[in-house]
Amino acid sequence: MGKTDVTSAAEDDGGSPTMRTTETLLRVLPMALCLAALVIMLKDSQTNEFGTLSYSDLGAFRYLVHASGVCAGYSLLSAVFAAVPRPSTLSRAWAFFLLDQLLTYIILAAGAISTEVVYLAYKGDASVTWSESCGSYGGFCRKATASIALTFIVTLCYAGLSLLSSYRLFSKYDAPVAYSTTKGIEAATFNA
Amino acid sequence: MGKTDVTSAAEDDGGSPTMRTTETLLRVLPMALCLAALVIMLKDSQTNEFGTLSYSDLGAFRYLVHASGVCAGYSLLSAVFAAVPRPSTLSRAWAFFLLDQLLTYIILAAGAISTEVVYLAYKGDASVTWSESCGSYGGFCRKATASIALTFIVTLCYAGLSLLSSYRLFSKYDAPVAYSTTKGIEAATFNA
Repeated sequence: MGKTDVTSAAEDDGGSPTMRTTETLLRVLPMALCLAALVIMLKDSQTNEFGTLSYSDLGAFRYLVHASGVCAGYSLLSAVFAAVPRPSTLSRAWAFFLLDQLLTYIILAAGAISTEVVYLAYKGDASVTWSESCGSYGGFCRKATASIALTFIVTLCYAGLSLLSSYRLFSKYDAPVAYSTTKGIEAATFNA
Repeated sequence: MGKTDVTSAAEDDGGSPTMRTTETLLRVLPMALCLAALVIMLKDSQTNEFGTLSYSDLGAFRYLVHASGVCAGYSLLSAVFAAVPRPSTLSRAWAFFLLDQLLTYIILAAGAISTEVVYLAYKGDASVTWSESCGSYGGFCRKATASIALTFIVTLCYAGLSLLSSYRLFSKYDAPVAYSTTKGIEAATFNA
């Protein structure tokens, strides 16, 4: 009984200290990168003889700014949650899993659509008469590219976090004893 | 010892027939949707007094066609694999998990960048002198939108498949009997 309680407490505190530290760092890193991507994009504006071009003129870049903000906020909150050893419930594991997946999709979409806009700004598209703009707004395009590159590194971090939170969630799911036993009998029949 | 062998064999047959059927259907559905999105996009071309606009004039739509093709092929192969009961190894579970995740990201990116292009084609962007094109090429834009909508349904299917394959993979990571037994006792204590 004593051992059982100890085991369950060990299971519930969110894994070993090393694993907790790794997870916390994996959550702090994208927070920093998101903030960097956000600041670079917010300051991305260029004025020349043709006029002024700012990030807010392009829907994709506005979405990237919002997505980076949400991602930085969530990364901070989840890093704090991950750092503190506390009972890990199934609902908490589900919440981490679903939110990590969602953030991965949101930030990947932000990177993808911004890449498309920068691609069009560099190359243009003659068939729909969209001219290239980076010849005139080179600095603007370079800053946008830097911000997008950071966003893709964040995407990689979040792909890793999704893996980690799926592991945390689904490794809880072999628990019911009856299920394992039934499966054992089933296999015995199958093998007989 | 006998029970141990049996349990591990049971774990290996890929789950119950119902679960296998569900997974197979979840893999056949995106195959059909990907093919539909592919065909709609491939046939998307419009000629009028301003000229001809075809899907192949836009990089994002070409990417969507390729991504849909890859996705349809993978969905078919994985549906066949999922339908046949066979020993499920850890490496196979890892392969499904990683490929499902990758396909989710690829198809989401295809949907996102194509949405951005259709958005620009409908609205234009005055600050970078990109004019709207859907006034002249309405039929083209509507077909592209239909193809993108199907792509997003495929993304949802793949998000579900990612969940399923993470469950299959990471629930294996509780397999060692000593650990399961401890968890069993723990559950019993919890329920008592």
